[in-house]
Amino acid sequence: MKESATEGLKERFWNLAPDGESDALRELLELMPPQDAAEAFEELGPGQQTRLLTKLTSDDFEEMLPHLPAPLVEVILQHYPQSDQAEALEEMWDDELADFLQDVPEEDRDRYINLLDEDTKETAEELLRYPEEAAGGRMTKAYAAIRADMTLDEAIAALAEQKEETEILSRIYVLDDQQRIVGKVRLRDLTFNAHAQKISEVMQPELVVVHADADQEEAANMMLKYDMMTLPVVDSDNRLLGVITHDDAMEILQEESTEDLEKQSGIAGPQEETDYLETPVLSHLRRRVVWVLGLALLAIISGYVIISFENVINEHFMLALYMPMVVAAGGNTGAQAATTVIRSMSLGEFTPREFLHAVWKELRIGLLIGISLGLCVALITPVVVALIGIDADPSLTTFQLALIAAGALTAQVATSTVLGAALPILAKSLKQDPAVVASPAITTVVDATGLLIYFGLAMWILGH
Amino acid sequence: MKESATEGLKERFWNLAPDGESDALRELLELMPPQDAAEAFEELGPGQQTRLLTKLTSDDFEEMLPHLPAPLVEVILQHYPQSDQAEALEEMWDDELADFLQDVPEEDRDRYINLLDEDTKETAEELLRYPEEAAGGRMTKAYAAIRADMTLDEAIAALAEQKEETEILSRIYVLDDQQRIVGKVRLRDLTFNAHAQKISEVMQPELVVVHADADQEEAANMMLKYDMMTLPVVDSDNRLLGVITHDDAMEILQEESTEDLEKQSGIAGPQEETDYLETPVLSHLRRRVVWVLGLALLAIISGYVIISFENVINEHFMLALYMPMVVAAGGNTGAQAATTVIRSMSLGEFTPREFLHAVWKELRIGLLIGISLGLCVALITPVVVALIGIDADPSLTTFQLALIAAGALTAQVATSTVLGAALPILAKSLKQDPAVVASPAITTVVDATGLLIYFGLAMWILGH
Repeated sequence: MKESATEGLKERFWNLAPDGESDALRELLELMPPQDAAEAFEELGPGQQTRLLTKLTSDDFEEMLPHLPAPLVEVILQHYPQSDQAEALEEMWDDELADFLQDVPEEDRDRYINLLDEDTKETAEELLRYPEEAAGGRMTKAYAAIRADMTLDEAIAALAEQKEETEILSRIYVLDDQQRIVGKVRLRDLTFNAHAQKISEVMQPELVVVHADADQEEAANMMLKYDMMTLPVVDSDNRLLGVITHDDAMEILQEESTEDLEKQSGIAGPQEETDYLETPVLSHLRRRVVWVLGLALLAIISGYVIISFENVINEHFMLALYMPMVVAAGGNTGAQAATTVIRSMSLGEFTPREFLHAVWKELRIGLLIGISLGLCVALITPVVVALIGIDADPSLTTFQLALIAAGALTAQVATSTVLGAALPILAKSLKQDPAVVASPAITTVVDATGLLIYFGLAMWILGH
Repeated sequence: MKESATEGLKERFWNLAPDGESDALRELLELMPPQDAAEAFEELGPGQQTRLLTKLTSDDFEEMLPHLPAPLVEVILQHYPQSDQAEALEEMWDDELADFLQDVPEEDRDRYINLLDEDTKETAEELLRYPEEAAGGRMTKAYAAIRADMTLDEAIAALAEQKEETEILSRIYVLDDQQRIVGKVRLRDLTFNAHAQKISEVMQPELVVVHADADQEEAANMMLKYDMMTLPVVDSDNRLLGVITHDDAMEILQEESTEDLEKQSGIAGPQEETDYLETPVLSHLRRRVVWVLGLALLAIISGYVIISFENVINEHFMLALYMPMVVAAGGNTGAQAATTVIRSMSLGEFTPREFLHAVWKELRIGLLIGISLGLCVALITPVVVALIGIDADPSLTTFQLALIAAGALTAQVATSTVLGAALPILAKSLKQDPAVVASPAITTVVDATGLLIYFGLAMWILGH
């Protein structure tokens, strides 16, 4: 398979890197997809990286720069004179350049910006004005634009001039003199139609656009829904500012889903640019320790609940048998509800306004899971008690234990499911990220409520 | 914003649907993006849907069919005569048609296939031979192909014939007489170059291809990494079978990440095609109840651990204060490690061969989190004990409690982190999906080990 062909090229690169001739290295780098060249370079030791820098010119690195983490790009750039640095930065697509500038320390950013020619500088500064996670922060200004009154021939001539500065030429926007979108054509509409036709005769309307301030996730979801290759980004007067391309949309989806997964496991803060194995232990630690500490402190509440039931537990120690189950079942079902609801909201399947509808659905699901679980556990209780072989506890019959477990499981699962659904919706309607109240937080909350339900019910049934 | 423009069209559709004239409805449907038309139709009641079917022809529904769930497509098709059904199915892209045929009951599938013309039938049957989750199951055969010895003019003429049957014309594959890929050109390479040139002079090599049997996630990850608009799917002789398009790659990423999220919350089985609020309670139940039941039964082991420490707990009931914390900290850190490792593996950041490297990293992270947490808890123990205001427990000093908690937390967090990392890697090297041993399963395992560690350490320190 050819995927291993690119792996083979990387192997050749690593073999050649230490002692290879400049020309052989250059030739190999030109064969490699720039993403693979970047990976291969990244995995060299710093000593070998430096030796390679002396053998090659900044030109040889140009294509791989957008695929390297910002600190390594800086290492490469700073090896070469300022004029080469400027040229390498100007060769990047504007959105790649903006990404890089966003990732470097502020003093470096200003220095790089001042190296750029006027046009590139202006574009970079415009893109940097948008937050990194907004649609405007992910767009490129390298789109193709023509006028409605051009003939196809004129349009092709106009595009021939733009094509080197256009990232995706397959979608061409038709703009009026206010820079507003009046339609779109595909390159194939120009290539295969009669060249004397007017653009206005072949163009299609463009109904789907995104505002520059919208969240990048909203933009990516629109592109997913409408199968778009490029999504126009507009200002409040509906003027075209730039486009988001299909490859950026994929990246946004991937970043957002990693973020969702991480939040659901209590991993906080921005993702590292480096791969898992290359990320230092302390960076991993920093993102994980916060939630663990916070939730551990909260768990003292659950401990306090147990201590306050000291009398009933000491007297009927058999109750401890199902305590972890009641707690775990609440955590598991709460997490399921939270995941389902958070995911549906982020796919735009319902809005906080449909709150009651969703909570009512989760209440029914929770009750059904709780009752099923309660029944199962009640039925197997005689078997479990016999297997464990504890001496009959005169103060707590097997029947009473089964009854308490079944009742507590039903109540615990139903409340946990509703809480798991309600808390993220509540967070969203308070304009917070629903995922902050995701699984670990909900699990900790329902630990305490589960213990209250279980021992409270036990006291009531046992007549304390 | 224009996104609300499409919302406005849906509102108009709902207002018009009950009593509107056929022509007005048809005109409105032509204005709407087919995805919105499908959503708007889906949200009508069955009675209104039927009334709409009588007012419109199968032609009016053609564009929205690929965006509707299979059962509703069947309702629409079966309203019209067989010849219209055949035409509607033949109008779909081959991958959309294959998706639909995969989703209908088997007897219907055969009936629909027999309605198709020979070409469409053959393509559909070929695509249906691949598993739904393989690259071959997601590809379209509607790609553009030319020969290397054609001039640009000849290529444009050849493409003019293919263009109606080509989904994405921006990437054109250059094939030899064995159907093997010898290169690729972009449509812009044809449109803007001298038309007497040969294709072989303007084509680029295509290094990145995927095998038809590869997992769809592998294909989507390649397209993400290499920023591809289309990814060639080949057989074992490297012959081009079809391409995966950028919009399908986004869908695959979205499906896979939803699946990952769900597995991490113990939600099992295939995703529903319908939105959250439209999915029946019993379908939600079916996907959630399995893990909840299984894990609940496993939690009996934790209960048994507690019961077997009855003596030490009864004698030093203060120990219960930190029991939930030790358990929860293990679950939280185990889940973090599992999430991080599973995500990195699915992004291809490391292979099971790098097992020891990853586990060693997690051991260091786990020890550091454990020690930090243990220290914090030891330090606040005097405050907590004072706040809770329990009478001094002569059998267990505050210092002993702090020492037991700190030691147990360190050991518990370190083992949970290593287990959280090791179990998914183990699953993967046994060719299982790493996500099956994701958060809920790991949490349940470390519940039991945490209790063993905590009470075991307590017995040792307290000299039982």
